[in-house]
Amino acid sequence: MDLKSLIRTIPDYPKAGVMFRDITSLIEHPEGFKESVQKLADPFRDQGITHVAGIEARGFIFGAGLAIELGVGFIPIRKAGKLPGETIGQNYALEYGVDTIEMHAGAVKAGDHVLLVDDLVATGGTAIAAISLIRRTGATLNHSAFVIDLPDLGGAEKIRAQDVETHFLVEFEGD
Amino acid sequence: MDLKSLIRTIPDYPKAGVMFRDITSLIEHPEGFKESVQKLADPFRDQGITHVAGIEARGFIFGAGLAIELGVGFIPIRKAGKLPGETIGQNYALEYGVDTIEMHAGAVKAGDHVLLVDDLVATGGTAIAAISLIRRTGATLNHSAFVIDLPDLGGAEKIRAQDVETHFLVEFEGD
Repeated sequence: MDLKSLIRTIPDYPKAGVMFRDITSLIEHPEGFKESVQKLADPFRDQGITHVAGIEARGFIFGAGLAIELGVGFIPIRKAGKLPGETIGQNYALEYGVDTIEMHAGAVKAGDHVLLVDDLVATGGTAIAAISLIRRTGATLNHSAFVIDLPDLGGAEKIRAQDVETHFLVEFEGD
Repeated sequence: MDLKSLIRTIPDYPKAGVMFRDITSLIEHPEGFKESVQKLADPFRDQGITHVAGIEARGFIFGAGLAIELGVGFIPIRKAGKLPGETIGQNYALEYGVDTIEMHAGAVKAGDHVLLVDDLVATGGTAIAAISLIRRTGATLNHSAFVIDLPDLGGAEKIRAQDVETHFLVEFEGD
């Protein structure tokens, strides 16, 4: 199946000049969604992964499917203030300002092998923050999986520079 | 498996007197998460469901798993301003004020059969709004599935009063 053709592009969202790659048209397609999850999982079926960590909110959609597909637990990485238990947090820079992501303290620990999942990598800021956050727990994070790469924005390269392998289903150049 | 015992309770969150039922301890458990999704799906395997609609953000986690399990498409119901395409919205009352949920216009239509999914029903306000929103598209919505019911808060009864069947995995009384 041509998964790329199921991802629609919305011009000038969220601001003028941005071509937004919208995965909602992929996930509303039954075979498209299922095949996406299976193909995201394929490289990791024998890698000893113990947990999938998904980044709020679109990363929950693919990450939850991937955790079920791999038969492992799912760890939500959320925006600050959204998790009810004790958390650890990680700041990261935005174009203007700073944002924070959090996970539950104790959700993973030394000996666990975490696979990081999100829908898309642009500049990689959130993914890099999530890698730092997860590694601070003592867990191992060597693998990541995303539906879409925007290679011109350089995020995937930054993730690999953290010694994290990247797995993408499709890429859009010229973004 | 005793799914209820995998749901931890956080007292006084988000405010004093509330016993918060936290599904993150359930989904980080590999068998617990998988069995939750399978049991949520069980009543709907032969019901002609065409789409699962999940409510942001915890409803994405169970809803995505359920869509994969049932082999249907997934429709995200999001907070206002989060979806990139043309949307339709529905307001609903909060304790103090009003909130809005949205879905993409055209995501479902007449002839589609939608299953509504979220993690928990308390007063039912968000679910009732989601039912109205989905039905405005012309799609049929007669079924809903949630991990947790808090029956003392009356939400499930309000949902059933909309001619929507409710399916729960566990309930906590005294909330």
